[in-house]
Amino acid sequence: MNGTYRAIWLSEDESLEVIDQRTLPHRYETMRLHNTEETVFAIKEMVVRGAGTIGCVAAFGIYLAAQESGGEWKRLEGFAAKIRESRPTAVNLMWAVDRMMNTLEDSKDLVKDARREAIAISDEESDRTGEIGRHGADLIEKIWEKSGRKSVNLLTHCNAGWLAVVNDGTALAPVYEAQKRGIEVHVWVDETRPRNQGASLTAWELKQAGVAHTIIADNAGGHLMQHGMVDLVITGADRVSRGGDAANKIGTYLKALAADANDVPFYIALPASTFDFTIIDGVQEIEIEERSEDEVHFMHGMLDDGSISRVRITPEGSQALNIGFDVTPHHLITGLITERGVCEASLEAVESMFKDLV
Amino acid sequence: MNGTYRAIWLSEDESLEVIDQRTLPHRYETMRLHNTEETVFAIKEMVVRGAGTIGCVAAFGIYLAAQESGGEWKRLEGFAAKIRESRPTAVNLMWAVDRMMNTLEDSKDLVKDARREAIAISDEESDRTGEIGRHGADLIEKIWEKSGRKSVNLLTHCNAGWLAVVNDGTALAPVYEAQKRGIEVHVWVDETRPRNQGASLTAWELKQAGVAHTIIADNAGGHLMQHGMVDLVITGADRVSRGGDAANKIGTYLKALAADANDVPFYIALPASTFDFTIIDGVQEIEIEERSEDEVHFMHGMLDDGSISRVRITPEGSQALNIGFDVTPHHLITGLITERGVCEASLEAVESMFKDLV
Repeated sequence: MNGTYRAIWLSEDESLEVIDQRTLPHRYETMRLHNTEETVFAIKEMVVRGAGTIGCVAAFGIYLAAQESGGEWKRLEGFAAKIRESRPTAVNLMWAVDRMMNTLEDSKDLVKDARREAIAISDEESDRTGEIGRHGADLIEKIWEKSGRKSVNLLTHCNAGWLAVVNDGTALAPVYEAQKRGIEVHVWVDETRPRNQGASLTAWELKQAGVAHTIIADNAGGHLMQHGMVDLVITGADRVSRGGDAANKIGTYLKALAADANDVPFYIALPASTFDFTIIDGVQEIEIEERSEDEVHFMHGMLDDGSISRVRITPEGSQALNIGFDVTPHHLITGLITERGVCEASLEAVESMFKDLV
Repeated sequence: MNGTYRAIWLSEDESLEVIDQRTLPHRYETMRLHNTEETVFAIKEMVVRGAGTIGCVAAFGIYLAAQESGGEWKRLEGFAAKIRESRPTAVNLMWAVDRMMNTLEDSKDLVKDARREAIAISDEESDRTGEIGRHGADLIEKIWEKSGRKSVNLLTHCNAGWLAVVNDGTALAPVYEAQKRGIEVHVWVDETRPRNQGASLTAWELKQAGVAHTIIADNAGGHLMQHGMVDLVITGADRVSRGGDAANKIGTYLKALAADANDVPFYIALPASTFDFTIIDGVQEIEIEERSEDEVHFMHGMLDDGSISRVRITPEGSQALNIGFDVTPHHLITGLITERGVCEASLEAVESMFKDLV
């Protein structure tokens, strides 16, 4: 199935069709985005999610905005600003909007040029995940050979597969590539509260791909690592600082601490576009998004009769806090798996591997 | 409300009445236990839970079994064995059953003596929580004075309040006592997946008591500690080794790692009955209960129409693993708050404070 699934695609009426990730794993549904408002809705409400996918949706969002703006640059700039504001933590979103707008600045045909550039961004993203997969699979292969065990146990948090990043994903690309190479991989899938991207999306993706996996509560990873049941951890990232600190879904930091305490290699997989080279100290400087407390109070799922509903799990009147991301400091990260190879999570190593970009 | 709530009580027909903790926080319901089978059901299905409460239910369970056995010692021994098997991790359960059976060995009137001993165990448990509350509140008071802040931010995992331990609880007893002393305490309540004891029971208890609290996903604690938003952590325990290692609800270990990494004091509150003096290395030796994977697949809560239901949150066909507890090694624990005072989490300190028991 590798390479045959996509999270988003251009539909025949030139709208952007996306898989609605809110109803997975229970129902497969798609949604068509026709304009800026719908693009912002899809990003904000997490119809689409994941760094790479958000970047591509934002790029195509500018294409939709170009159609909507009737070729007027000022109007397009207004739409671009709205798309930028839809998800402040997502550096890929900013990057994609910036690249689109820079390309279009001198364009004579906004719609045509926006379409071409959005497709280019999406294709490049797809090529990058292939490279990330190969570099990550090399790591998995080494660990597998060293362990001498039948299968490798990999733990991941949240969803960084093809739903999150066009084609194979980031954190899961190495898993799919390892599978192609005949390496038996078993994935511990963190549920990833409060929105359960692991229990719903990652588990669903892995099931489609026939990869052995076990869903666990976010609380369980420490115990598993303490007892030698995890060979390596790979997660994606929403933003990685020049110093190698990684902002990713809330809870990633706790797993990095457990990995460090139990000598389990901990990797972050990311395309270069996820770096924010303007920031060195990610822990202090990366802005963390606070989301609606309802995501903590309510849990969405499928009732016994097959309908999808939500249940309240907290007492009425109790308040909740919903922090979307946390930052794992670079000293807890064994390496960054990028399309250019595996890079140490340090200022020197990042600046050296990406010197043309910093 | 302190001291006025109880999780269990003897009902007028000499059955044991317990608060059904499975329907909280949405519905307050009680259940009457009349015999061994119902006692085992209540413990196994988590109608009642928490180390202290389980111990007391087991003690009263022996009283119910004495009624059921018609005064025959052999039959009573058979019932006691069944109660022992209902929850292998719960050392208080073993301790309570052992104490009941030792007391009854030479009894001329099993029923009468069992009733008296069960009440004694329950009263002693209640006295102990008062002492734990005072010692813990002293710690909170010191941290509060030192911080110079308006309120103290305490993080807890799972439920170790009066629902878990007859009267004020263990981890929450210091909070209730601090409240009495006029110290403003705000509690970060870990949701505590997969059974949500924090989001449901701890939040409900604190709300009844008027203690400020905020429910968070289990994933959030690391970020909060990294950003100075937690002044101390107190959790309960299911079993603590002679060496000071603490088995508690799965996920406790991850919070201890985060506390250690961010210089946040991390305490375990427990009565002496929770020690297992036969074990030194808790990480290697404490047996960890594996529970039904359905607790990961399904989430129970209240639908918008007020009825209580479950929703499936994982794809059909994906497997899950549900590990009930983890063990926090002693070097991550700042201290053990016991009825005798605060004890360093080390073999020497435990043996010295509890030399009459080891």
